[in-house]
This record gives sequence, structure tokens and C-alpha cells, in this order.
Amino acid sequence: MLFERIKSEGLAHYSYIIGDQNDAVVIDPRRDIQKYIDLASQHGMNIKKVLETHRNEDYVIGSYEIKKRTGAEIYHADGDLDYTYGKPVEENDSWDVGRLKLEAIHTPGHTLGSMSYILYDPDGEPWMVFIGDALFAGDVGRIDFYGEENLEKMAYKLYDSIFKKILPLGDGVMICPAHGSGSVCGTEIAERELTTVGIEKERNPKLQIENKEEFAEKVSEMLEYPPYFEKMEEMNLDLPEHQLSKKTMEFLSPEEFKKRAEDAVILDTRKELAFGASHIPDTLSIWEDGIPNFAGWFLPYDKPILLVDEAGNPARAHTYLKRIGYDNVEGCLAGGMLSWNMQGEESESIDTVNVHEVCNILDEDESTFLLDVRPQEEIEKKGEIEGAYELHLTQLPDNLEEIPEDRPIYIFCGSGLRSMTAASILKKNGWDDLHVVLGGLSGWSSTTCPVK
Amino acid sequence: MLFERIKSEGLAHYSYIIGDQNDAVVIDPRRDIQKYIDLASQHGMNIKKVLETHRNEDYVIGSYEIKKRTGAEIYHADGDLDYTYGKPVEENDSWDVGRLKLEAIHTPGHTLGSMSYILYDPDGEPWMVFIGDALFAGDVGRIDFYGEENLEKMAYKLYDSIFKKILPLGDGVMICPAHGSGSVCGTEIAERELTTVGIEKERNPKLQIENKEEFAEKVSEMLEYPPYFEKMEEMNLDLPEHQLSKKTMEFLSPEEFKKRAEDAVILDTRKELAFGASHIPDTLSIWEDGIPNFAGWFLPYDKPILLVDEAGNPARAHTYLKRIGYDNVEGCLAGGMLSWNMQGEESESIDTVNVHEVCNILDEDESTFLLDVRPQEEIEKKGEIEGAYELHLTQLPDNLEEIPEDRPIYIFCGSGLRSMTAASILKKNGWDDLHVVLGGLSGWSSTTCPVK
Amino acid sequence: MLFERIKSEGLAHYSYIIGDQNDAVVIDPRRDIQKYIDLASQHGMNIKKVLETHRNEDYVIGSYEIKKRTGAEIYHADGDLDYTYGKPVEENDSWDVGRLKLEAIHTPGHTLGSMSYILYDPDGEPWMVFIGDALFAGDVGRIDFYGEENLEKMAYKLYDSIFKKILPLGDGVMICPAHGSGSVCGTEIAERELTTVGIEKERNPKLQIENKEEFAEKVSEMLEYPPYFEKMEEMNLDLPEHQLSKKTMEFLSPEEFKKRAEDAVILDTRKELAFGASHIPDTLSIWEDGIPNFAGWFLPYDKPILLVDEAGNPARAHTYLKRIGYDNVEGCLAGGMLSWNMQGEESESIDTVNVHEVCNILDEDESTFLLDVRPQEEIEKKGEIEGAYELHLTQLPDNLEEIPEDRPIYIFCGSGLRSMTAASILKKNGWDDLHVVLGGLSGWSSTTCPVK
Amino acid sequence: MLFERIKSEGLAHYSYIIGDQNDAVVIDPRRDIQKYIDLASQHGMNIKKVLETHRNEDYVIGSYEIKKRTGAEIYHADGDLDYTYGKPVEENDSWDVGRLKLEAIHTPGHTLGSMSYILYDPDGEPWMVFIGDALFAGDVGRIDFYGEENLEKMAYKLYDSIFKKILPLGDGVMICPAHGSGSVCGTEIAERELTTVGIEKERNPKLQIENKEEFAEKVSEMLEYPPYFEKMEEMNLDLPEHQLSKKTMEFLSPEEFKKRAEDAVILDTRKELAFGASHIPDTLSIWEDGIPNFAGWFLPYDKPILLVDEAGNPARAHTYLKRIGYDNVEGCLAGGMLSWNMQGEESESIDTVNVHEVCNILDEDESTFLLDVRPQEEIEKKGEIEGAYELHLTQLPDNLEEIPEDRPIYIFCGSGLRSMTAASILKKNGWDDLHVVLGGLSGWSSTTCPVK
Repeated sequence: MLFERIKSEGLAHYSYIIGDQNDAVVIDPRRDIQKYIDLASQHGMNIKKVLETHRNEDYVIGSYEIKKRTGAEIYHADGDLDYTYGKPVEENDSWDVGRLKLEAIHTPGHTLGSMSYILYDPDGEPWMVFIGDALFAGDVGRIDFYGEENLEKMAYKLYDSIFKKILPLGDGVMICPAHGSGSVCGTEIAERELTTVGIEKERNPKLQIENKEEFAEKVSEMLEYPPYFEKMEEMNLDLPEHQLSKKTMEFLSPEEFKKRAEDAVILDTRKELAFGASHIPDTLSIWEDGIPNFAGWFLPYDKPILLVDEAGNPARAHTYLKRIGYDNVEGCLAGGMLSWNMQGEESESIDTVNVHEVCNILDEDESTFLLDVRPQEEIEKKGEIEGAYELHLTQLPDNLEEIPEDRPIYIFCGSGLRSMTAASILKKNGWDDLHVVLGGLSGWSSTTCPVK
Repeated sequence: MLFERIKSEGLAHYSYIIGDQNDAVVIDPRRDIQKYIDLASQHGMNIKKVLETHRNEDYVIGSYEIKKRTGAEIYHADGDLDYTYGKPVEENDSWDVGRLKLEAIHTPGHTLGSMSYILYDPDGEPWMVFIGDALFAGDVGRIDFYGEENLEKMAYKLYDSIFKKILPLGDGVMICPAHGSGSVCGTEIAERELTTVGIEKERNPKLQIENKEEFAEKVSEMLEYPPYFEKMEEMNLDLPEHQLSKKTMEFLSPEEFKKRAEDAVILDTRKELAFGASHIPDTLSIWEDGIPNFAGWFLPYDKPILLVDEAGNPARAHTYLKRIGYDNVEGCLAGGMLSWNMQGEESESIDTVNVHEVCNILDEDESTFLLDVRPQEEIEKKGEIEGAYELHLTQLPDNLEEIPEDRPIYIFCGSGLRSMTAASILKKNGWDDLHVVLGGLSGWSSTTCPVK
Repeated sequence: MLFERIKSEGLAHYSYIIGDQNDAVVIDPRRDIQKYIDLASQHGMNIKKVLETHRNEDYVIGSYEIKKRTGAEIYHADGDLDYTYGKPVEENDSWDVGRLKLEAIHTPGHTLGSMSYILYDPDGEPWMVFIGDALFAGDVGRIDFYGEENLEKMAYKLYDSIFKKILPLGDGVMICPAHGSGSVCGTEIAERELTTVGIEKERNPKLQIENKEEFAEKVSEMLEYPPYFEKMEEMNLDLPEHQLSKKTMEFLSPEEFKKRAEDAVILDTRKELAFGASHIPDTLSIWEDGIPNFAGWFLPYDKPILLVDEAGNPARAHTYLKRIGYDNVEGCLAGGMLSWNMQGEESESIDTVNVHEVCNILDEDESTFLLDVRPQEEIEKKGEIEGAYELHLTQLPDNLEEIPEDRPIYIFCGSGLRSMTAASILKKNGWDDLHVVLGGLSGWSSTTCPVK
Repeated sequence: MLFERIKSEGLAHYSYIIGDQNDAVVIDPRRDIQKYIDLASQHGMNIKKVLETHRNEDYVIGSYEIKKRTGAEIYHADGDLDYTYGKPVEENDSWDVGRLKLEAIHTPGHTLGSMSYILYDPDGEPWMVFIGDALFAGDVGRIDFYGEENLEKMAYKLYDSIFKKILPLGDGVMICPAHGSGSVCGTEIAERELTTVGIEKERNPKLQIENKEEFAEKVSEMLEYPPYFEKMEEMNLDLPEHQLSKKTMEFLSPEEFKKRAEDAVILDTRKELAFGASHIPDTLSIWEDGIPNFAGWFLPYDKPILLVDEAGNPARAHTYLKRIGYDNVEGCLAGGMLSWNMQGEESESIDTVNVHEVCNILDEDESTFLLDVRPQEEIEKKGEIEGAYELHLTQLPDNLEEIPEDRPIYIFCGSGLRSMTAASILKKNGWDDLHVVLGGLSGWSSTTCPVK
């Protein structure tokens, strides 16, 4: 018997492979599928089916890539959308997996056609449920994809899905969601990597309600909608047209890089300190682990992308970008930033200051503009900085006019990483007197400077 | 946060590492501990504690090996035994692991001093329980270590542990036992690798009872006690004296092997077919995956062991043997059995017959002696073979007088693997007219030959 | 700087990747190319070129697979053949690889258009030469592909290539051939994995000659030509039509296997002992490591192939078969031979006898027919068996009439492995009284039985 | 047959394992020996001997670690030193390795007792020679260990070793030295990773001489002697007393780190940019790959060492340090530098400037002090910077008085990496107006600023 969760870091995406005897099924695979193939092969199992819990919007699903390798059948939730491949799932469809059985149940809310899959053990009793984005450890899926006008409707649907279909499965049944803590698909997801109906029923804050209406009130919220979601939705409907590119990334000498950069977007994946100290002019900064969450806001799909990192081999960043459909990464700076400077090419820097210095500066210089790029939820939870102008990083490109051009800008986030992304965006747009606060609010909190 | 189960194949032993922030704890480690070290290091965690659920009898525990590498503190359940190292655990002892907490509760039954460890999530709520051999998926731990006279007493203790301490934790709490399906520590363990209080409460056959007495009746059973258990118990009390040998296994040419074999025991780890076709005289046959369950019955701890396999590199068998304390493996046959035959050394064979031939033989030859080496539980569950003499493989060496010396012996098990072990034992003891039935009862059942 | 030899076991094929700065070149790649991709990527290098030393006949070359991943340019030796892709190499073509340089020189003999590639170090001095099948450690390439009538002509060409082009490069230059010991492309290849012009000049037996004529005499020999060579030659001319299949192998239960076997050829990859003891009727036996050398003689390209092994996962055999163009492997027996017998399916056996028994039998039974399936070269080198009928394994299918149908057949080879392949072929063709001699001539030599 | 070179990056140290049949020998092993053990085991070989080419001064040899695992015998060159273990080698000692043979020849020069080992192939002909530090690709070993007064004597010895013993082995013989390009043991080592007698005879600049005297003149040079050499020499004589510590490195939270740092030396292994932007006060900077060459100059053996890196897991740096005997690494900063700043702890920065800015500054500010920390050889080869004060990085701690305290210091090296090490040393000693030039001389050369 095989049960394995495959976690995609950064996306905090969970996919699953389950198998028994010679059969295996994959649920919500990511786009780089070799791991599923290897696991199945090691266990002597054939991947016969790929089940999707919903049409995904935050990553490119690997269903078709698996089918190409194994001939597996693909089953779509949200099956009334215009898929160019696979089959729609219907309520109560079921599939044998060796002595196990999977059964589909309709659990709308996150999307209209979301499905969950109950896994029955060899005795025919429910053992686990793969619930996609309906329910997470400590949170529920967002329900705002159909607009503000449909929030209540979707909330009621989600209520029914959770309270009438999932929770009645029994407290002992294990819950296998599609995301863990850190995902953009649920801001309050708990770190419990394994959870159960019983645990969620008792402890999930969103489920501690009296009735449908209270639930609706609690979960009805319009969240940010990253621009790349649209691209993902489109790609996931027509995967045969958007197959994963197997092309290797080119290692470019500084000279070649410079030439190629003329028509390309440069993404630097180093952390805030090294980027701040020296980077190629006109470069976007997103540290490696921030790519899954932020690249989709700022990176184009229709221009070549070139990568810069420390060691000259940003393979992981490349994988992260492919998972969200960026097949347009063409190359990287061979030898990393060091080689650029050893070639005597132009570079720029962005000032980084520690929180203690910032305290002094704020005391002394009234012209400073404090910019807090954290989202509202985080600000509410972790604390506000007195006098800071609040604009979430993701909203920065569309609201540049809010940032003064003639004052020193001190940028805050939780740690300094997102601040540097913000700084790089401002710098690309002409700002120059930029200062990234190291340690961010976290560091700030430990000083004697005021946090509200 | 880190939660990982480390499975030791064959033993069907589960150990666990859990961690948060920079702290990690290992529960019931096996003797080859590199995996725990690596996992902790990859996650930037220090193994601060090793917790044992009971004094183990079926494998050598790795607590002391971990301590040597990390300085971790060792906590013993069954703490009133004469340990030469570590500290005893007391009821309600608790340890922080980052934002998590572990708490010890006394859950006797399998042993008098068995402890379980409740894992509390960052909110202070029970999330999982590490229960050692108290409870398995679909079964409970054996309670016969203190003799028949104490069965009822131990059953009552186990009842209290399970019904008064474990089940009340809540249906949603996950159960993490020390063994999975295939272990000698529970014959009916289900294949569910992950389970919960709710699932066991409802479906574990041993828990479907009205009262303490019914429970005691259901679980009071004297099981086989492999001779190596005593060795394990002794070693586990004094690990500093029994540290894992890091000595490599020597690859021996046929000539050297022959010389060294004079004072050694030879164990051939190939499957039944190859062993039957040709093997070194006076060799014990246990196929690789059978080692954890059967080596402890037949192999000595005080004589050198030499291994034979197909490819000349029985590294996995070597690991399996070390896990149960055999530090006396000195070498293996370089080049495998092929090299032996290419050297023109003496070899022997044991006849293997397929079930169809056996049918005919049984019809024709009344002198045949049918030997079924499966244990009673299996015979009851899977079916009896008419006319077969039943003697569990493990009991064979002590009951050789029951086997006729002048009749052709046809040996049955479930598949043919254990039969070959039995045949090799008989052969070493002078029997010669031996025939292993391929496919065993499983193959037999598909024929028209009678199974009761 | 990167220099790595990639060895394909079994084929004893050597390919090479060399690189400097960001450039890499691959010479004579095998078909499963991930290793080259990984090596280049780890070193921050782009594979810009694939160079072939000759149109290969013993394996499918991976040039086009690399081009698909990296966009590398392909350069063909034997460039006047009808390739559907790539470019022909001309004498003195040269390519920079970072600070290194490669230069093509025409070294015909093995084929008419064979090229060698001299690697110059950063100082412009010859450092290594990639010579394909012109010269091996201790041997030279075969020259019989153009028929007996052209042997002398080709020998003279090879003489000129070696004596006028390779040896003059200087004694210190390293020689990098396309094959090592064990290849079908040179029967006397020494085990020296690294060699130099100086070493070969002095010690290669084929080069210890007075003049061209003596050389021609020494090397002019018609060798066996495996039927699959033709397939390889055809595939290598049109790789775009014969791209490597990425389809996974199906794991088939005994029932499914049986059904699928009706239209398929079964290949059992276990060693002689297990196969002899029990195998599926009508199965070809080639032990795993024998596949590269023998599958091409006996396996069809136009029927599905099903594999059987010990553990139920013959991944390595599958790779070996793909390397010689067998994209028609459809599945394997899940659970290995054990599962077949546990299903009670029909099986057969072939007797295996050790050399000592054979001695006795030969003495006693005059009707026995001794079959030696080793090739003439080996018989000459290792010794003859008195009274044995000699017929090389590869010639057996076309010469079945030479084998008596009414006598017990005792089959010999060097070890017992090839004998079992022969026995399986005879069995498929109706012979039944078959006996494989374990240890083969090697074992035999150590007994008192007569070897001439 | 097994031949594999094991390269230790950074040290540019080459060790070798050779084997045949079941025997293997390791030559000059490094201290972390698992790789040798694994290679031998994969090939079914027993490491029977460890041969040393000389008493090493630049790393801790792994001979005794191998002996502990395999029981191998250790043979020392420089065997008249006071070793506490192993046996001395004598001229013409020889050992069989399967069908191969190794023979010791005395090749003094680098040390008085240096030995080389000739490897003979199965035909008894010389195939390779393991020459330790006598000869490298493109260079010879240093001969200054016995003082200036013995330079000539040692040069003559080395001349005899090379010209009378090594070169006569024949041009085709392969040369296997103990170091490659990048080692401190030879400054001009070529990048050729594989070389031969013929190639060195013709192209090694040190061997292009008329006679002994000319050779002596060419090679007689007193080189720097890092203080850790003495420690290595001492440890290598008494390895049983200095066994590799298996203790894991502790991951320390910023608070714990701070506490532990009070009695410790902090080493930051990040590259120049990140270190410059923010680091813990009073920290030594050596980028990871610089550790093997520079740690031995600046790090103590008798105080705890704490590591800082980017990701919070400096495992590779830890390995590098252990290879040169630093068993005193106690912990690292969990979460890397980011966690330090998120804790709001004190940090400092060192200015990094690109070469273009430096040009301007030099033009404008006459008070700047230009410090070039490259060694003389490099300055001679790559070019001088006009007006720069030259002091090799390694000499800085002992010559601090040469650095002005009241002027802005601009530090140059080849790339910026060593400059940051220098800056960190100056900072620890009270300097503050420090500026590291990014790209170093390499970047500088591409500008219009003057290089002599």
C-alpha cells in the first residue's frame, strides 16, 4: 500500500499518490511529475488515474504530463469548463485502486465544481478524504472567485460541503487538503501537516460557528487575485497546448547575458543583503523562496526571463517558475553576480539599514517616508508601525503615484525580503533614495522604537 | 515543523522524528541512525531527546547511537529496569519541542512500564499519540511477556491504557504505533499506515467489546517467543556495551569463503528458486525480506556469520541483521553463488515442484509426507491442506523427531519461501528427500487439489 | 574544466563529456541522456555540440535526444550516409570548447567515414584523442563491415589511421576509445580503462607488427554480425523517427501477464539458477547483464516484449533494452516469478547440474550430447571440452538441426549463464531433456574431468 | 577493475582508490572517508591497504579512519618520523591488488621521505604512477620545508626523483598527483586533470631545463607556510589521538548564538556582497570555497568556532573545516543572517563599491589608501594597480601596523572575495573606513583606470 504526500515548497501545494497492489492514483499533481513516476515504479504500480479536485488557478497541474508517460486517464472536477482533454467527474463516480476505493463527492464553495475524493480502506470504510481547497488545517478555501456578488452564495455552498458532506464522514477520518501553511490559497492555514475531521471540527476557527449565516459572515471576503491566476486557469484547460518545456536553461557569460538582457526581464533570486549590495541595473528582486508567491504578480509570460543568483545555477528557481507556467526562462548569469562584477560591468546597489539605525534616522529626519509593504491581515496580526504608509507589495506597481519621489523611502515588511522586492520595483521605476529595513517588523519589535 | 515516520522494512517497525524550530525528538529509533541525523540536519534541527515507548524486545534500539552523535538525552519507558544509561520517564513528564509539546502517559499492558507520548500542537491541543506497542492499526500489542499466569492482569492493564487513556484523547487524534503490518509484534495489524483514535475505536476488531472481561478474553493469548528476544532485551539495557559495529563486511573469494566457513554459519539470502537449484552444503536459507522475522530464530550470536546472495553484495541483508543485533556478520561470497560454481566447488540442490505436479504426486504416491510450516493463525485464516502435518517453521529445529526420515517430504507454506527455509534446516540435519512446493498454499488454492 | 567518461555497462560503451567555461561537448552519447544533461548543468555548462566518431551499429546513439533538450548541433562522421538530421564532419573541422579545442581527423578502417577528435589543451597542445572504434586498449576495431572482399582494403586504411595519424600524436597523449572490455566490438579489449598512445604502441598486441601487410594479416577477420546491427544502423540514420519512448513499463498481475503474453515474447532476466528451477513456459532466458550482448540476436523489434525478473521490477533490463532500440517492452510480471507460482499458473523447469555430477554422468551414460555454446575465440583461449559439440549460442536458432532430439543434452559455456539462454531456446523449440552445467568450463577446469 | 580519483574541492586534493577482483587500495585519503568505503563496497572490494605518498601538511589524512572501518594496513612514506600507528614503506615494497601490482619508489624532494607508487597492469607493465607532491600537471612540488639552507639539496633530490625515476617510466605512463589546480601546494598547477609522463616531459615549464643546476634555480623558492601546517603535521603523526569527531553541529537561535559567541570565534561563510551588507560584529569573513585555503591562516584550533551562512545550514563549510582538522566547530546560526536581523540584534556593514565608482573616488580623493591583498606571484602575473600598497592577505594580521588608521582604505584582490576577508580582519582590529572593491583587479582591468 502506498500513501505519500508530495509537497511543493513555496507553493505550499500538496499532491498525493495512493496505491495498492499494482494500481496507483495521483491527486492534483504538480507539473514536474518525475517524482510520481518514480514512486509508482519503485512500488511496482501503474498510475491509472489522475484526479483533480478543482480547476486550479495557482499552479499548472501535471495531469497531462502524467498521461503522456503512463497513459493514465484524467478526471476533471469543474468538469463543465472547456477542457480540451480528460473527462469530467460526476458525483459518486468511484474507482478501485487495488483493494482500496476512491469515490467522488461534490463539494462546491471554492469553485462551483470542486470535488472531494473519499478513500475507502479495504474494509470499505472511509479512511481519508482529499478535499482540495475546500478545507485546510485551520482555515477554509477562499470563495471569492465569482465576485463579490456571489460571496454569500458560495459561502453557503461551502458550508454545505463542509458541514453536510465532509464532517459527517466521522471524526477519525483523515483530511488531505491541497495546500499547507504558506499558500496564497488560504492565509491562516495552520502548520499541522496532517489533520483529521475531528481536529478541524473542534479547532478550525472558521468552523466554530452556530449556523450557515455566521459561517458566511466569517468567510466572505474578497482577497487579492494575482494576475497570473488567469494564465493558470487558461493553461489548465488546455494542457496539451502548454506542455512542460524540457529545454535546459542556458548559462550565459556576462557579455552574452548583457546582450540577451536587452529584450528580456531580469529576475535576481538572491536574498535582500546580496541584492542590495550589488545588482544588475533594471532588475527585479524576488528571493528564491518568494518566487511561488510573488513571481506571478510581477513577471511577464511573453518576454524572455533571465535569472541571476549567487552561485550561477538557479535550478530551483527555474523549477519554481515552471510550476507556475513560466516556460520563458531562457538563461542565467554563469558564475553568478561575482562574474558580473569581475567583468567590470555596471551594477547598482540599494541601501540596507538595520533597525537600530532606522530608529535614529526616524528620530532625526522628518522627511523620511516609511513604507510598509505587508498585507492588511499581517499588519493586523503582527502590529502596525506608527507613521508607516501601508501598501501591499503586490499592489505597488499599480499604485506608484502614492509613493513620494523626493523623500527618502524606508521600506518595511516582516523580514526585509519583500521590502527588497518593493525597492527593486521602485528602483526600476525611477526612485533612488531607497532604504530597506533589515529584519523588518520582526526586528523592529525587539527595539525600543514604537510599534502600535 | 517536521513529522516523519521512518519505516524499517521487514521488521515493519515505525520510528518517528518530530521537530519544530530548532528542536527535534526521535521516538523509538532503529540502530542505523543516519536517517534521523540527516533529517534533523536538513531541517536545521538539533535532536535533543530520544524517547522510548518501552524496552524493546524485537530489535536493538538506536537511542545510544543518537546520543553519541548529538548529545541527546535518552528517556526510558520501563524505566525501573536496570538500564546502564539514560533516564527513566515518569507519568506526565513533558518536553517542549519548539512550539510543540510532548507529554508522557503511562500505558502498561504490552509491558509493565510502557509509556505513550502525546504530541500537543502549538495551541496546546492533542494532535497525535505515539503509543508504541499498546495499539496498532487493527490490533493490539501482545501481552504475554510476563507468562500465562499474568495474562489477565496485563489484559486489564492494557484495557485501562487504551480505553481510559488513549481513546478519550478524542476521535480526531492521530495514532502513531511502533509497528505496521508484517511485524511479529502483532499478527493482525491492518495495512492502514496512518490511523486515528476514531478509526480504531470503530473498526479495530479487538476494541469492539462490551467490557474489560470480554477484552481480556479476546487478547489473552500466549504467542511464540523467538529466542533472540532475550538477546534484544539484554542489549537494550546496556547499549553502551553493544554499540553498532561500523566494520565493513568482507568480500570473500570462494576459496577464502570455504576456509572461513569452517567455523562459521552460512546464511543464503536468495529466494527459494535459486537456493533450491544450487547452494553451498550445510547452509541456512532465509530470503532477504524474511531475515527480520526469522533470523532471530535460527542464527547464533556467538559464531561468525557468512552471507551468500545472487549478486555478491548482500548489503541490505547485512543491515537487517545489524538491526537485530547481529554484529557477527564477517563476510560474504564475492561474486555470489555463480562464483562458487565457477570455482567448481561442491554444491547441493533441493527440489522445487509446482503445485500441479504435487497434485499428481499426492495422488500417486502414498508415502509422501506433507509438511505445512505455517503458523496456526495463518492456517486458520487461509485454509488447511488435507493430510498435511502442521508444524510452524519456527518450531522445526526443536521438533525434528516429528519428521519422518524415510519418506519424501513435501513442504508447504504460503508461497514457497518459508518452505525453503524449513527444507534447508532439514537438509542440515540429514534429511535428503525434500521437495518445496512452489507457490505454497496460495498456488495450491487455485488448483483442483483439495483445500479444507 | 570537465572531463568525464560515461560508461554503459553491458555494452561496455564509453561516451564522453568534456567542457570548459560554459561550453560542453558530448561524444558518442547513449540514448538515455539525462546523465549528460545533469553533468553539464552541475558544472554550469551548455552542451553546444554532439560529435559522433562513426555511424554506430551496436546501440542507438543519443545525439538527437540531446539536441531536443539543449539545441546542440550534431556532427556526423560517416557523413555521406543518408542522415535525416545533423551535419557531416569534414577533416580538420574544429570547435572551441571554452579554452579547449577539438579537431576532427579522418581515421577510416572500422568504417569508411570514421572520425577521431583530438582534444587540445589551453596551450594548444594535443592532450587526448577520442578515437571511436579505431583503436581500443589492447585491440583494434573490427574491419569486416564491408565484406570479406574489402578486408584488406579496410585493414590498410586502419593501418594508416593508427600508424600515420594517431600514434604520431605523441606517446603522452591519452586515448579515449568508444568501448572497453566486454564489448562485442572488440573481443580482446584489455581492462585498462585509461590508456595512452605510448602504452598502446608498446603493448597492444595488434600493433606489434613490422609493416602494413603483417598488420592486415593480423586484423583481417570476419566476425559475427548480430541481426540487430542492421536495425541500429537504420535507426541511427533517422533518429527523429525513432525517438526514445518515455512510456513507463506496465506492472502486470499474473492474470494480465498471461493474457498479454499471448501476442508477446517473454524475456526472463533472472540468472541461470532461478530460471532453471521455475519459469513461465515458452520464455527466452537472458540474464540481465547478458542483455546488451545477446538480446539483439534473439529478440524481435516488432512484437511486444514482456519481462520477468526476481523482484518484479526489471528497470535496469528495460534501460538496457532501450539502449539497443527496443521500445517495444510493454510490461513486466508484477511481484516477479514468485507471484506467478503463487497464482498456481503453469511453470516449467530446466535441470541444472554441477560439474561433479556431470563428470559422473559422462562416465556412465554414453548417450549424452555435450553442447558447448561458447564462440571459437573463447574456446581457443580457455580450452576445449573433449567430446563437446561446438556451436556458438548466437548461431543456435539457425542451426537447430545440428542438435539431436533424442539424447540428453548437457550444455556448457563459461559459467552457466549462456548455457541457460541456449537451453531456453532449445526448450522453446521442443527439446526437453536439457541440462545446464553450472560453473561451465570454469568450474569444469577445477575438476578432474578432462579439458583438452 | 576500479580506478577512481576522489577530488576534494577547495583543497584541490586528489586521492585515489584502485582495485581489482576483491582487493582495493586507497592512496592519500581525506579525512571524511565514506566515499572510499562506498566505492569499495559497490564494487565488492575490500580496502586492504592505505598508502601515503608523504606526511601531509595541508590536510588531515584519513588513513586511520579507514583502518577503523576496514582493518586496512597503513603504510607511511616519511616513515622515519614518529608515527604512532601504521608501518613505514621501504623502497621497492610491493603489494598485489588483484591482478594489479603497486610498487613503492623513493622520490624525495618535496619531503625527504616522499614515496611514489607505480601501478603495474595485469601484464606487469607500468600503467600509472601516484606521485604525491613530487610533480603536478604543469608544476613541481614545493621544496622549502627544510629551510632556505636546504633548498638546493632538496632541489637536487627532486631532480633525481623526477628525471631519474619518474620520467624513465615511459612517456605513455599516466601521472596521478595529489593536487590539482587551486592547491596551496603548487601555485602554477595546470588545469589538466589527467596527465602523462610524455605530456609533462614536454610541456611542464619546470622540466624544460638543461641540467640539475638550472632545475634547482628554477624551483628553489621559499613559499608561505600557513600556521596550520604545523597542526596538520602533528595530527598526521598521531591520528589515533585526533579521530574525526562525529558530533553534529548545533543549530543555534540568535539568542543562543549570541550567548555562545562570547567565548567563540565567529566565521561567516557568505560571499562578499551579503557579508558586506550586514554581519554580526567581530566576525571573520571567509567565503565557503575560500575556507580550505584561508581558514588555516586565521582560525584557532583551541576556541569554539561558530558559523554563519545564508541559509542556516553550513554543512559544506563544516566538512571543509574538518578536513583541515577543525573539530572545534560547535554550532551555526539557525536561519542564517536573516534570523539575526529579524531578532533585531546588532549588525554591522562594510561598504562595497564597484570599480567604476572607485575610479572616480581615486581621481577625487587623494587621501584614499589602496590596499592590494593578492600575493606577489599573482600580482606579477595579472598586473599591478598603480599606487596600491601590496600586502598579501595571509600576512595582514602580523602587519597591521602598515595600514594607516586615518585614511579611507580601498581593498583590492582578484574578485572582491579575499578583500572582504581582509576587511573583516581590519574591522575586527578597529579599522572602520573600509571599502571593498567589487570585481577586484579583474573588474578593474576592464575599465579605463590604469593598471600597470
